[in-house]
Amino acid sequence: MVTKEEITEWFKNLQSDICTTLEEADGSGQFIPDIWERPGGGGGTSRVINNGSVIEKGGVNFSAVHGETPAKILTALNLEASDFYATGVSIVLHPHNPFVPIIHMNVRYFEMSNGIYWFGGGIDLTPHYVDQDDAQYFHTTLKEICDRFDSSYYPNYKKWADDYFYIKHRQETRGVGGIFFDRLTAQKEKQKSDIFAFVQAVGQAFAPTYAYFMNKNKDLHFDNQHKQWQYLRRGRYVEFNLVLDKGTKFGLDTNGRTESILMSLPPFATWQYNHTPPPDSLEAKTLVSLKKDINWINL
Amino acid sequence: MVTKEEITEWFKNLQSDICTTLEEADGSGQFIPDIWERPGGGGGTSRVINNGSVIEKGGVNFSAVHGETPAKILTALNLEASDFYATGVSIVLHPHNPFVPIIHMNVRYFEMSNGIYWFGGGIDLTPHYVDQDDAQYFHTTLKEICDRFDSSYYPNYKKWADDYFYIKHRQETRGVGGIFFDRLTAQKEKQKSDIFAFVQAVGQAFAPTYAYFMNKNKDLHFDNQHKQWQYLRRGRYVEFNLVLDKGTKFGLDTNGRTESILMSLPPFATWQYNHTPPPDSLEAKTLVSLKKDINWINL
Repeated sequence: MVTKEEITEWFKNLQSDICTTLEEADGSGQFIPDIWERPGGGGGTSRVINNGSVIEKGGVNFSAVHGETPAKILTALNLEASDFYATGVSIVLHPHNPFVPIIHMNVRYFEMSNGIYWFGGGIDLTPHYVDQDDAQYFHTTLKEICDRFDSSYYPNYKKWADDYFYIKHRQETRGVGGIFFDRLTAQKEKQKSDIFAFVQAVGQAFAPTYAYFMNKNKDLHFDNQHKQWQYLRRGRYVEFNLVLDKGTKFGLDTNGRTESILMSLPPFATWQYNHTPPPDSLEAKTLVSLKKDINWINL
Repeated sequence: MVTKEEITEWFKNLQSDICTTLEEADGSGQFIPDIWERPGGGGGTSRVINNGSVIEKGGVNFSAVHGETPAKILTALNLEASDFYATGVSIVLHPHNPFVPIIHMNVRYFEMSNGIYWFGGGIDLTPHYVDQDDAQYFHTTLKEICDRFDSSYYPNYKKWADDYFYIKHRQETRGVGGIFFDRLTAQKEKQKSDIFAFVQAVGQAFAPTYAYFMNKNKDLHFDNQHKQWQYLRRGRYVEFNLVLDKGTKFGLDTNGRTESILMSLPPFATWQYNHTPPPDSLEAKTLVSLKKDINWINL
């Protein structure tokens, strides 16, 4: 059976590999490691990038923490007190160029001393300007990964992402979605190692997928108007992360490491009262695309 | 007995008076009214200012809404289904000059068809740079208002503000506090009209108090470094409002009008990973002052 040590080691290496690939794609930016300890047990390394050639601000975080299972989880699952162990890699990248999308990826493993464990994760794309070809490429890539393991994964986890990355108070999705999954544990013919293999495949796909968008779009021309729109869309990203994201909420509620949790926030963001883009503008077309249940692969 | 119609009318006039005083103090900015209706009943007028001489972005909102009492309130109070009526004025102002503080004020009235009613409100100051004299002036003003009604108000409501406007995950207060109160209803020797009179006094004090800070600090010299700090502090303001503010959370949860609720967000905010100001800088001194239970009147 796959042990937490193996998973931890694999996640740690994933963090390094991702940073290496992203630094190559960026050309000049470097991830600066910041090692931290958790008072209750364990710790992590945040790798933070600022003012690269392509990436304006981002983080690739690894953590492996343990301690007493938070009361919130015990209550939610109706469980007795136990110890927990949690490890994962979490990434958000904010690019300079408004035509390069924001991306988020997370893979995580959680186990308790009572033997319960699960994997979770996801990857989703938030273009400032929705480009159908890019969205199709992204979803096709994710579907291919999913299909290697189970043909039900992509439709289920794509739907889960649409529902999860939804900014209810704006009635718009955060971006073009992706896949999201949680509480995956051995059942029927799926063993723990099968699920871990799927999570590994998601983790490994991240860096080449984002490097593709970086390379493809980093030199697209943009002007001040595009930057203004990017700042507004980043404002929505902030709204999602601070109002709705369960990981952020849980982390802040349980005295997680604030700086690592909030590395997801953009370098600059703006809010304008009742901003409405002109009809038929690129911006207005993007808003129309921020809907659930779009079949990006076969539009 | 004071009726909801009287209270509503008074709040509506308060909104106008405040906008007039702020426009005078600003010199060039104008509040643009945006009238909206609530699908479930009632509506409001948001008055929004952008790029004034002193105020960069802000709103003075009035609303009077009614309908079925939200399930969340009924559950919290263990009540049967009923109708509600709620009216109030809510303000947040973000100035250009980093030495002019951000300010927030809210006065509100809530009643249900079962006869239960209460007043709530508060006013708090969020300087980007804490100035002891300004904080003292602000708290002295609030104490004088409170003392006209009850000598227990200022100490109680000052403490309530310290506890409420606290960014737990940063272990810092949002600013220098102020007063906060909720669920004030007739009891002992206090009648409904007494409480309304107190709420009116708080509402009336807002505009002259903020105009004082606008006039006093609007021409203080600042440079790019001060602006950068202002943007970071605005980021914290966003964190408070989106993660912790109960009014924001309640509004977004109950399909309130998003644009009016989020008018509190700044025009431009930044986040930097693990930003730490140099020792002994003005910025570092401000961080030391963002603590609960500081006696600003007698430092």
